[in-house]
Formats: sequence, C-alpha cells, structure tokens
Amino acid sequence: MSLPVGFRVGGVHAGVKAGHQNRDLALFWSDVPASAAGVFTLNKVCGAPVKLSRSRLPSEHARCVIINSGNANACTGEKGYEDAEDITEQLASIMSCSARDVLICSTGVIGRFLPMQKFYQAIPSLPAAIGNTEAHLETAARSIMTTDTVPKFCHRQFMVQGKKVTITGVCKGAAMIMPNMATMLGVIMTDAGLTKVQADVCLREAVNQSFNCISVEGHTSTSDSVILLANGQAGVGEFTGDDLTEFQLVLNEVATELAQKIIRDAEGADHYVTIDVNGLPTYADAMHVAKTIANDALVKTAITGNDPNWGRIVSACGRTGMPLTEKNISLSINGLVIFKQGSPTDQDVKEVSLSMKTGEVRIELTFDLGKSSCRVWTCDLTQEYVHLNADYTT
Amino acid sequence: MSLPVGFRVGGVHAGVKAGHQNRDLALFWSDVPASAAGVFTLNKVCGAPVKLSRSRLPSEHARCVIINSGNANACTGEKGYEDAEDITEQLASIMSCSARDVLICSTGVIGRFLPMQKFYQAIPSLPAAIGNTEAHLETAARSIMTTDTVPKFCHRQFMVQGKKVTITGVCKGAAMIMPNMATMLGVIMTDAGLTKVQADVCLREAVNQSFNCISVEGHTSTSDSVILLANGQAGVGEFTGDDLTEFQLVLNEVATELAQKIIRDAEGADHYVTIDVNGLPTYADAMHVAKTIANDALVKTAITGNDPNWGRIVSACGRTGMPLTEKNISLSINGLVIFKQGSPTDQDVKEVSLSMKTGEVRIELTFDLGKSSCRVWTCDLTQEYVHLNADYTT
Repeated sequence: MSLPVGFRVGGVHAGVKAGHQNRDLALFWSDVPASAAGVFTLNKVCGAPVKLSRSRLPSEHARCVIINSGNANACTGEKGYEDAEDITEQLASIMSCSARDVLICSTGVIGRFLPMQKFYQAIPSLPAAIGNTEAHLETAARSIMTTDTVPKFCHRQFMVQGKKVTITGVCKGAAMIMPNMATMLGVIMTDAGLTKVQADVCLREAVNQSFNCISVEGHTSTSDSVILLANGQAGVGEFTGDDLTEFQLVLNEVATELAQKIIRDAEGADHYVTIDVNGLPTYADAMHVAKTIANDALVKTAITGNDPNWGRIVSACGRTGMPLTEKNISLSINGLVIFKQGSPTDQDVKEVSLSMKTGEVRIELTFDLGKSSCRVWTCDLTQEYVHLNADYTT
Repeated sequence: MSLPVGFRVGGVHAGVKAGHQNRDLALFWSDVPASAAGVFTLNKVCGAPVKLSRSRLPSEHARCVIINSGNANACTGEKGYEDAEDITEQLASIMSCSARDVLICSTGVIGRFLPMQKFYQAIPSLPAAIGNTEAHLETAARSIMTTDTVPKFCHRQFMVQGKKVTITGVCKGAAMIMPNMATMLGVIMTDAGLTKVQADVCLREAVNQSFNCISVEGHTSTSDSVILLANGQAGVGEFTGDDLTEFQLVLNEVATELAQKIIRDAEGADHYVTIDVNGLPTYADAMHVAKTIANDALVKTAITGNDPNWGRIVSACGRTGMPLTEKNISLSINGLVIFKQGSPTDQDVKEVSLSMKTGEVRIELTFDLGKSSCRVWTCDLTQEYVHLNADYTT
C-alpha cells in the first residue's frame, strides 16, 4: 500500500490522550498546494476545529491536515476557537506555509480546553515524523484513534492516460460519538488533479454514498469531518470527462471501505448489518426507513441474540409515519424470505437464526410503493456497548 | 381503593401466555352502557384488535373491554381480524350485550394467530370472575401483564355537586415494545357522566400530557391503546363547565400516574428520568428536543453509569436540527447547574454524579429561544435491557 505521489504523513506523542503513551497527534502533508474540500457534521453544536476548517474550505492551496485525539475542543467557546487557530499558526510557521492552508480536526472529550503547552512542545517534532511509507500511514491512522480497536485505512490505484493515480484514505470512529468523546474523522489523499469545485462535488457525492449511510446509534457527533486533499502529482493534469467519472467511482469505493471499517469496529458490536431497502417512492423515503431500522434498539438487540424477530422490523417500518401497511412489506434476512406482503412465510426461523450466528446479517426490505432504494450499514447493540458507555464515568 | 360505581373487573387463566400458569385474560365491565373513547397507536402497522376497537369508538353504549396478554394478534392479516371479531361476539352472547359494544385489546408476540380454542374455553368463566373489590382490580391488572414486574393501577376520587366521583385506571407496559411482544395498554374507568364527544376530548387531552410524554426506547408499538369508559353512575348527571374542568384535571392525574408507573417498571431500568425543556418557540419544538434526549443511547448509558456527561446532552440538542448553538443552552442535573449559555460552570461534577446514584435524575434544559416548555419521562439503558431483549430468542 503506498501513498499518492507528493504526500507525507505521520504521528507523534503529545500527551493529549490522558493515560496513554500512544501517539495522539497526526499530520497529513502535501508537498505542493492541493485542492481540498471538506464535509462536516450537521450537528448545530460543533467543535471549534470544525468551524475553523469549514471557513478555509474549499481551497486550491491547502497544504495539510493536523489532527489530535483525546480532546474534541467542542463546546469550548471563543478560547477553543483561538486555540485551534494558534495550533494552525504554529504548524504553518514550522512548515513554512500559510496558516489558512492548514486544516485541523480534533476528537475526544467534549467541553475541555486543549492542553496548549503539550501542543507547543509536540508540533516541532512533526516535520521529522512524516514520510511516505505504509508504516508512516499506519502511525498516522493510530494517532487519530480514540476507542477504535484497529487503525483504519485503505487505498486504490487506477490508470488514467497511462499514468498511475492513487487514492489513499484514513479514518477513525467506533461510535457516532465515543464514551465521553467525539467522533468520526476521515482524510482522503489523492494525486489526481482536481479543481476545488471538483474536489467539493466529488467528496460530497462519495460521502453521501458511504459515511452518510452508516450509523452506530444515531447520534451525529459534534466533530464529524471528512477532508479530501488532491495535489495533482500523478502527472495527468486536470481531470475531466471519463477520467473524472472513474475518479468518482474509485473515490466512492475508498469512502465506502472506510465507512464499513468504522461499522466493523463499532463499539461493543458483535454483528455487522447491511440493510437494503427497495421499492419506495424516493431515496429520502428509503433512507428514512433504513435509518429507523438501523437505530431501533429493539431491532439491534434482537440481532445481538441472533433472533430473526421480524415483528420488530415490520413494526419499525410502521412507526416511520410513511403511508404504508404490513401488506406493502416483504422481508428477507440473509436471503431467506421470512415475511411476504403482510404475512409470515413458512420459512424455518431456526435456519434464519443459524445464518445470523456468522456475525453477518443482511436485512432486505422490499416495498411495492415505488422504485427507489438504498443501502445502509449498522451494527447490533450489545451489553458491551452499554458497559463501554456507562462505565466511562467522570 | 375502590372501583367507580357500576364497574366490575377480573381475570382468568386462558393459557395464551405460554409457560405461564398466571391469568392472561381480563374483563373490564360496566353494568350499564358507558360513553367510551380510545386513543390508539400511530404505528401504521397495527394489530387487529386496534383496528376493530378503533372502528367501534367513540361510543355512548360501550359495555366492556376484553384484554388478553401473551399474543398481540398483530401482522396476522384477515384471519386475525376475524378472530378478534369472534372473541367479541362470544363474549357479547355470554354477557347479553351487542358485539359492537365490546372493545378488545391484545398484547404479546407479534405475528402469531390467537389460540382460539383456548379463548372459547376461557370466556365462559369470565362472568363469575368479575367483581368490584381491589382484589378484583389487581387480578385484572395482573392478567394483562407481559414483562411487567408489578401490576399497575391507581385511582382518584373527588366531589361534584355533593356526590363522590371516582376515576380508576389500569395499564401495562415495560417497554414501548416487549421482548418479541407488544405494548402498552390502558383502561380508565369512571362513574362520571360524559357524552362520547366529551370522553373523546378528555381522553386525548389526558393522553397527550401523560402516555405521549413517556418513552423507553422510542419504538411506538403496533398495539398501544388507551380506552376510557364513563358510565355516569356517580349520580351527578352529565358533566359541564367547572365540573368537566375538574374531571379533566383529575383524569390527567390518573393518566400521568399510570404513565409514570410504566417508566418506573421499564425493562432493565435503574434510573427514573424526568426531562424538562423550557424556552423554545413551540411545544412541538420542546417535545422534539426532549424526545431526542430521552431516546439517545449515549445519554441513556451515561445515566446508567451515574455520569453527568453534559457533552452528550448538549450534542443531542445540536443534532435535532433546531436552529440553535451551544450559546442558547443552559443545563442543570438534579438542580445543579452544570452548563450555562455555552460554557461549563465550575459545578463539581462528582456532586452531580452522587445525586444521580439515588436512581432519580431530573434533567432541566433551558433555552433562550421562546416561551414553550414540556416535560417527558424516560429511563436509562442498561445491560439488563440488552440482555432481556437479546436473549428472548425464537
């Protein structure tokens, strides 16, 4: 696995993540100015880094993203915003670039001020810590983890006009919000050549099909951010036409793989759940139904128990407020049809239960109310999730 | 505790609730025709008894409500509807009334046909089982329980024109939907004299202030039903003016006490939580914020751990989509102000945590965006809740 041309990444130990000797400060650096776009949380209560990075994007001269774990710098008022600015200024001065070309993300506890002294001490060590190997990439991915149990990154390569183009993505997240912490973050780097408008459009499209299709428990955090950096170093020039279309498809794949990695590492989860909803009037309708099921505590706990409890799924469809009755609904679990147009089938539920014990569950709901469909990924709700989130006391 | 004049209630063992020797078939009977109103689930997938009872209400000649536990008769198609009709016809013939004056509710597993033979055997024993003592009331309350751990009933008496008026209510419910079962049910009996329109208006008002203000996990079941029977036997005649106003206030009290009993017996819950939201533009806004917090898995698990994790509560406000920022929000827990207009206070969080260990938690959110307020009751989310709902496998 290699980085796109012209990117260097890495991480150092700053001591922000209390009680950890691990690295907690990462830098994603482009050797040349890059087009950059960002997609941020829709939570009206958002962190200072979200506000600052949002104000600097989209851009055609971005140089880097600096990310700390252990403290989200959210709900910290004007001082929090000034702290975020200070960090980008210090980094800019060390890396000889402009502060407005430095983007920043923070993840961790909400409502505490950043330990600025630790940042001032750690930032000067970043230039020596970055490089372009897979080991550097893994170190950067580990540096942004909070309750994640594995580092999350992936890459794709494809050929354009005889030149190799690379997209490499990194993310973190194990719940929409962590025990006393926030959030999901992602950085996607590419050596494709994009304008800032192209970067913005492509990223939004990819995020809609990936990160916006996952849910652990329905809580959109204060700090969700995904940033795309495109530095054009693949040597193809600016992407247009079919090249841009192919770039979009590969970007979608990278974003989807990253999003799925978050669900596979979801807090306390035992089951990885794919929900397909078909046959509704609009995509928004399909997403509304899919997310209602994905976030339903009773559906999630049934999955925990390998219980093909279709009554809960059908009932969850009914409580969405959509104009439908049970006769509009058919349901299969792992390919086994268990409920058809309002009535239970004679499918042996024990067989369905057995199929769920693999830890992979595919719920397919088919309505006869339209032609729109969607796919959403989620996980179950376990005692371990409650333990992780209840026993992280102040 | 006594029943209103002219009511008899009781319960028998029919064998619908598998593996239980307990009573599972209850009858709430008025000796004379009563005004009756019902409020039913908004879930578009609803049980056959909901459809049948809804078609018979409001009424001025209702005689009774028959309720079984152990089987919700939901998602059972036309046969399920015919089964419900059959039960009301058999009961009508035994009680010498019209079937259209018999109301019916069912609670339990979704998607299975009722064991009709057991109903045919048990119904004839109902006339001898009903009476007007507190013991009869408790038996009726126990007969409608599913995962409830305690029978739930309460009553109030007040004087009108020198005569004693009684309102007695019974309900069941321990989650919006139970392990493989549905739901919350309530019957409120009174000897007040009401027209069917008055009964309908008064019941809707009372339900809006009580049952519609509780949530265990946000899942509206297929079978939720609350029925009011008013038989006029207090001897006051038809209620008007101040008498009707007083009736409404006392009815609200009864409905609220019943709703609170459901939350206090919520599945696996360790904490009883009252959420007050003040200072928003409309009541609907306040309810939207309050219910978002009440159903947030991260807020609920924090409460389980006695963790005054205000970041999760403020973040949940932000994700409602309401036009607000953290500066509009102040928050107290058990009377201790922990977050004020966008910044944490210097309140010692250990003191807040200690206050939560009583099992009673009052969350008070104050916004500066309007004059509307609401109150909602909920519970925490515990490992026991997950255990109860995961390990009830088919």
